[in-house]
Amino acid sequence: MKNTAILLISCPDRKGLVATIAEFLYRHNANILHADQHQDSANGLFLMRVEWDLEGFDLAPEDFHQHFAHIAHQFEMQWRLALSSQRPRVAIFVSRYDHCLADLLYRHQAGELHCDIPLIIGNHSDTKWLADTYRIPFQHIEVLKDAKAEAERDQLALLRHHHIDLIVLARYMQVLSPEFIRHYPNRIINIHHSFLPAFHGAKPYHRAFDRGVKLIGATSHYVTEILDDGPIIEQDVARISHRDALDDLIQKGRDLEKIVLSRAVRWHIENRVLLYANKTVVFD
Amino acid sequence: MKNTAILLISCPDRKGLVATIAEFLYRHNANILHADQHQDSANGLFLMRVEWDLEGFDLAPEDFHQHFAHIAHQFEMQWRLALSSQRPRVAIFVSRYDHCLADLLYRHQAGELHCDIPLIIGNHSDTKWLADTYRIPFQHIEVLKDAKAEAERDQLALLRHHHIDLIVLARYMQVLSPEFIRHYPNRIINIHHSFLPAFHGAKPYHRAFDRGVKLIGATSHYVTEILDDGPIIEQDVARISHRDALDDLIQKGRDLEKIVLSRAVRWHIENRVLLYANKTVVFD
Amino acid sequence: MKNTAILLISCPDRKGLVATIAEFLYRHNANILHADQHQDSANGLFLMRVEWDLEGFDLAPEDFHQHFAHIAHQFEMQWRLALSSQRPRVAIFVSRYDHCLADLLYRHQAGELHCDIPLIIGNHSDTKWLADTYRIPFQHIEVLKDAKAEAERDQLALLRHHHIDLIVLARYMQVLSPEFIRHYPNRIINIHHSFLPAFHGAKPYHRAFDRGVKLIGATSHYVTEILDDGPIIEQDVARISHRDALDDLIQKGRDLEKIVLSRAVRWHIENRVLLYANKTVVFD
Amino acid sequence: MKNTAILLISCPDRKGLVATIAEFLYRHNANILHADQHQDSANGLFLMRVEWDLEGFDLAPEDFHQHFAHIAHQFEMQWRLALSSQRPRVAIFVSRYDHCLADLLYRHQAGELHCDIPLIIGNHSDTKWLADTYRIPFQHIEVLKDAKAEAERDQLALLRHHHIDLIVLARYMQVLSPEFIRHYPNRIINIHHSFLPAFHGAKPYHRAFDRGVKLIGATSHYVTEILDDGPIIEQDVARISHRDALDDLIQKGRDLEKIVLSRAVRWHIENRVLLYANKTVVFD
Repeated sequence: MKNTAILLISCPDRKGLVATIAEFLYRHNANILHADQHQDSANGLFLMRVEWDLEGFDLAPEDFHQHFAHIAHQFEMQWRLALSSQRPRVAIFVSRYDHCLADLLYRHQAGELHCDIPLIIGNHSDTKWLADTYRIPFQHIEVLKDAKAEAERDQLALLRHHHIDLIVLARYMQVLSPEFIRHYPNRIINIHHSFLPAFHGAKPYHRAFDRGVKLIGATSHYVTEILDDGPIIEQDVARISHRDALDDLIQKGRDLEKIVLSRAVRWHIENRVLLYANKTVVFD
Repeated sequence: MKNTAILLISCPDRKGLVATIAEFLYRHNANILHADQHQDSANGLFLMRVEWDLEGFDLAPEDFHQHFAHIAHQFEMQWRLALSSQRPRVAIFVSRYDHCLADLLYRHQAGELHCDIPLIIGNHSDTKWLADTYRIPFQHIEVLKDAKAEAERDQLALLRHHHIDLIVLARYMQVLSPEFIRHYPNRIINIHHSFLPAFHGAKPYHRAFDRGVKLIGATSHYVTEILDDGPIIEQDVARISHRDALDDLIQKGRDLEKIVLSRAVRWHIENRVLLYANKTVVFD
Repeated sequence: MKNTAILLISCPDRKGLVATIAEFLYRHNANILHADQHQDSANGLFLMRVEWDLEGFDLAPEDFHQHFAHIAHQFEMQWRLALSSQRPRVAIFVSRYDHCLADLLYRHQAGELHCDIPLIIGNHSDTKWLADTYRIPFQHIEVLKDAKAEAERDQLALLRHHHIDLIVLARYMQVLSPEFIRHYPNRIINIHHSFLPAFHGAKPYHRAFDRGVKLIGATSHYVTEILDDGPIIEQDVARISHRDALDDLIQKGRDLEKIVLSRAVRWHIENRVLLYANKTVVFD
Repeated sequence: MKNTAILLISCPDRKGLVATIAEFLYRHNANILHADQHQDSANGLFLMRVEWDLEGFDLAPEDFHQHFAHIAHQFEMQWRLALSSQRPRVAIFVSRYDHCLADLLYRHQAGELHCDIPLIIGNHSDTKWLADTYRIPFQHIEVLKDAKAEAERDQLALLRHHHIDLIVLARYMQVLSPEFIRHYPNRIINIHHSFLPAFHGAKPYHRAFDRGVKLIGATSHYVTEILDDGPIIEQDVARISHRDALDDLIQKGRDLEKIVLSRAVRWHIENRVLLYANKTVVFD
C-alpha cells in the first residue's frame, strides 16, 4: 500500500477555493490519487477530501499545518490531515450477540480494515472465544443496573490507556450516558437493527414484524446524546414476506447488520466520512 | 386468458383443512392452476388462495356457495369466491401530481391491470388531459377547507353510481374522513412516499432529506381510520447520497411510488392479498 | 433553472491539471456548482466534469475555445463545452412495444428530460397514438427485409433534417448497419433486455427463463458496430422466482427497461457520461 | 426445534394429487407446519414440499415408504422423505481464499446451518487455522497438475469414509472431473463469482471490470459435468461504479459470494430445493 496523506476540508463555499487548494498541493509536488468534493448549495457549504502520494511531496507531515494555516484561515476552514501510516486504534464493545464482532474481526484479519484493534470490551464474557481466536485482549466489564457510572468509568480508563480513536458498538445492548459520549464525539459508531428513523428504540425486529413491513433494515450511525438520532453513515434493507417468522427476520437482519456496520467502520477509518447538519457525506 | 375461479380462505388452523378443501375441488373436477397457503403458527391461523380453471368444473359459480357452505361452517372460515370474468371496477383519486395516474392508466391500457376504470376524481383539474387521452371520465370535485363533508358526499354518490369496488389514491393529497373510509373498508389503496412507519404524515421527502437517510422509500397500504397506519401491501426503496438534493429525492421517489402503487393495485385486483392482524399476506 | 456551462475533459493524468483548470475558471470568475473528477490509475487517465453558473462568468461561450485552447493543448486534452441553454435534439426509434416510448414521452412532458424531441421514427405505426398524445411528429418508415439500406437512407435524411444529436432506440427491434452507426458514434443509446453480457443477442427473456436465473436485468448502452457490445451506461436487475412464468419475466422486465433506459438518456443529455476503453464514467 | 418430516414430490400434474396427498397425511394424523407447491404448466409438472410435526403422526418414518408407495406409484412420483433429526453431513472444499469458509463455519457454529461438518479438504493448507478454530478436521490434499486423478481418488476415499451427503466448494479453485461429479449428482454446490451465465469460466471479476458492467454478481449452483452450467440455486448482485478499481470489485464480491453461497447451502440442507429441467425450485 502507498504511503498517502488525506486532507479533509469543510468550509463556506467561496470562489477560488479549489484553485487555491490545488495550487498549494501542486506547488508542493503532490501526486493526487483521489479528489472528491461536494457543494451543499442550501447551506452554502463546501466539503472536500483529497488524497495524495507522500512520495515526492516536499512537505513533511509535521510541517503541513504551518504551511497550510494561512489558506485554512483565509477560507475559514475546518480541516484535518490524516496519514495512511497512522492506523486508527479501534475498541469494540459487545454484549452477547457475536455476529457483528465475528464479522469485524474476520475482516480485520483479512486486511479489509486498516486499523488496530487493541481492545474488546464485553458486558458479558460470551464472546471471549472470538477475541482469543483473533488474539485480541478481551475485557469483561459487567454493567449492573445501578452501577452504570462505575462501569463507564472503568471503560473510559481502558479506552484512555489504549489510546482509542474510535469505539464500535457491535450490537452492544447498553445505552451509553451523555457524559460518556461527550468523551468521544462523532467517534462512536453504532449499528441499529432497523431502517432508522423507523423503529428507533428497543426491539425493532419485533415491532417491524408486528407492523407488517415488507423490508427490514439496518442503520449504522454516530452516537449522539439523543438515542438513535445521530448522523447516519450507512443503511441497507432486505426483503421479507409473510413466510418469514420473527426468527427469520432476526436471522436475515444479522446479515444486514454485519454488512452495514462494517461499511461504516471502513469508511470512517479510511477518512471518507464528513459531517454537517447531523448528516454525513461519504466520499466512497 | 383462461376463465378461472379464485377461492380465498382465512380460518383457524386445523388438521384436515387442506384434505377437505382439496377433496371438495377434486370431487367437482376442478383443474387447479395455482394454490398457495400460509400458516401463521403464532396466531393459529390458516390462509389459502387457490385458483382453478372453470372449464370442466361441475359447479356453476352461483351454486358454489350452497355446496361449499357446509365446509366453510365446519372450519369457521372467512372466505370469498372471485371470478376472473368479473373485472373489479376501480376509481382513481388524484390531485395535481400526475405520475402515478399516468403510470396506472398506461398499464391499464397495456393490459397489465385486469380491471375497469370508469372514473377518475380530481380535486384539481390539472390531470384531466391524461383522463382524456385514455378516454376515462374525469370528475373535478373541489375540496374546500370548510366543505370537505360536501365534497365527500359528492364523491360517494359518484362511487355508488359507478359501482366502484376499489379506490386508488394516486398521490391524492387529501386525508379522507373516517366516515368515508368506513364505506370502503380495505378497499382504498394509498401510496405514501416514504418507507413507513418512517416519516408517516406530511412532507416525508423533506424529512428524509433533513434526517440524512441513505435510502428513500415508498409504501402502498390499505387506508384505515388511523393515518398511514393501515396494512402494508408493498414497499420498496432506492439509494440516495449526499449528491442528491431534495429535488432529486422527489424525482427518484416518483419512480418508486409508481412501481409500488401499481404492484399493490395489481395484486389486489388479482385477489392475491389476504388480511389479518393489520398485516397482509400477498400470494404473488 | 440556472444558465450553466459544463466542461468535460479527458486527458493523460498529470500533476498540476486541477490547479491549472481551477485557476483558469477562477480567473474568469466562474461560480462552480458541481465538480467531479476521476483518475484511472491503470490507464493513467484523468476525467473531469465541472459545471458553473454563467452569470458573472467573464467569457462568452463562443470565446471559450480561444482562451482555453492553450491549456487544452498543454495537457493533451480531449474536451467539450456544453451549455445548459442548448437542449439536445433527440430522435426516438421504436417498433411495436410502446412501454419505453410511453415512459420517455411522459418524463419529457413532466420536465425530467431537458431535451427537445422533434422526431419519432417507427418501423410500425402502432405507437403513433402516443406520439399524437404528446404532439410529437411520428414518421413511419417500414424496414423491409431486403431494403434495409433504403430505410436507413430515409431515416438518415430525417435525422439530418431535424438536426438530431442523439438517437434513442426504445425497444427498436432492428439491428442498425455499421454505416448507419458511423454517422452517430456514441450518440445512439439502446436498451437491451438482459443483464449484458449475459444473453446478448436475440430473445434474452426466453433464454433467461430456460437458464433458470434468479434475477433478470436490463442494460442501456451506446451502440457500436459489434452487437450488444458498446459501452454500458446503466444496468439494473429484478428478482424472479419459479413462480414467474415467461410472461411474468417479460412484464417485470418492462419496468426495468423503462427505468434503465430513461436514466441513461437523462445522464447523456445532462452531459454526465464520459467514455474510455469501451466503458463509461457517469458523474451522477 | 421440532422433530419434523419433510416430503418432497415431483410428478406429472394430475387432478386429485393434492387431495390424495393431503388425505393420506390427515389419515395418519399429520400436523402440517408448511406446505408449498408449484405447477409448471409448460412442462405439465407438479412439485411439492410439505413439512409436518412427527409428534402425533401415526407412522414411524421407517414405515412411511411402505404406506406411501401405492400413492407414489399411482401418480408416477419421484419423491423423498427427509427427517429434521437426520442432519446432513457436509464436506467443504477450499483453496487459499478463506472468506466463504470462514462465513460457513461461523454460521454453522451460530446454529444457522442444521448440518454436521466432519471434513474440510484443502488443496492448500492456508485455511487450516479456521478449521482448527472451529475444531473441524482439515485434510490437506495437494492437487498436482499431472496427478489430479490421484487427488480425487484420495478425496473420494475421505468423503466415503465420512459418509458425506453434500460437498460445498467454498471458492475451491479446481475443476472437478466428470468422474468425480458422477459420484455426487446434484450434491455438489459451487459458488461462482459472477452473475452467470455472464463471465462463466475463469477470472470473472477481471472480465467484469474490463466490460464495464455496473453491477457485479455471484451465483451458487449445483455442479454438473459442463462447467458453470448446472442448476442455479441463488444469485445476487451489488452495484459498482467507475470509482471501484478491480480490487474493490473483488472485495465487494466477497460479501456477495458469502451470502449467496450460504443461502444455497442452507436451502439445500433444509430440503427446500427441487430440481427439474436444469433449473431449481426453491421453497423458501
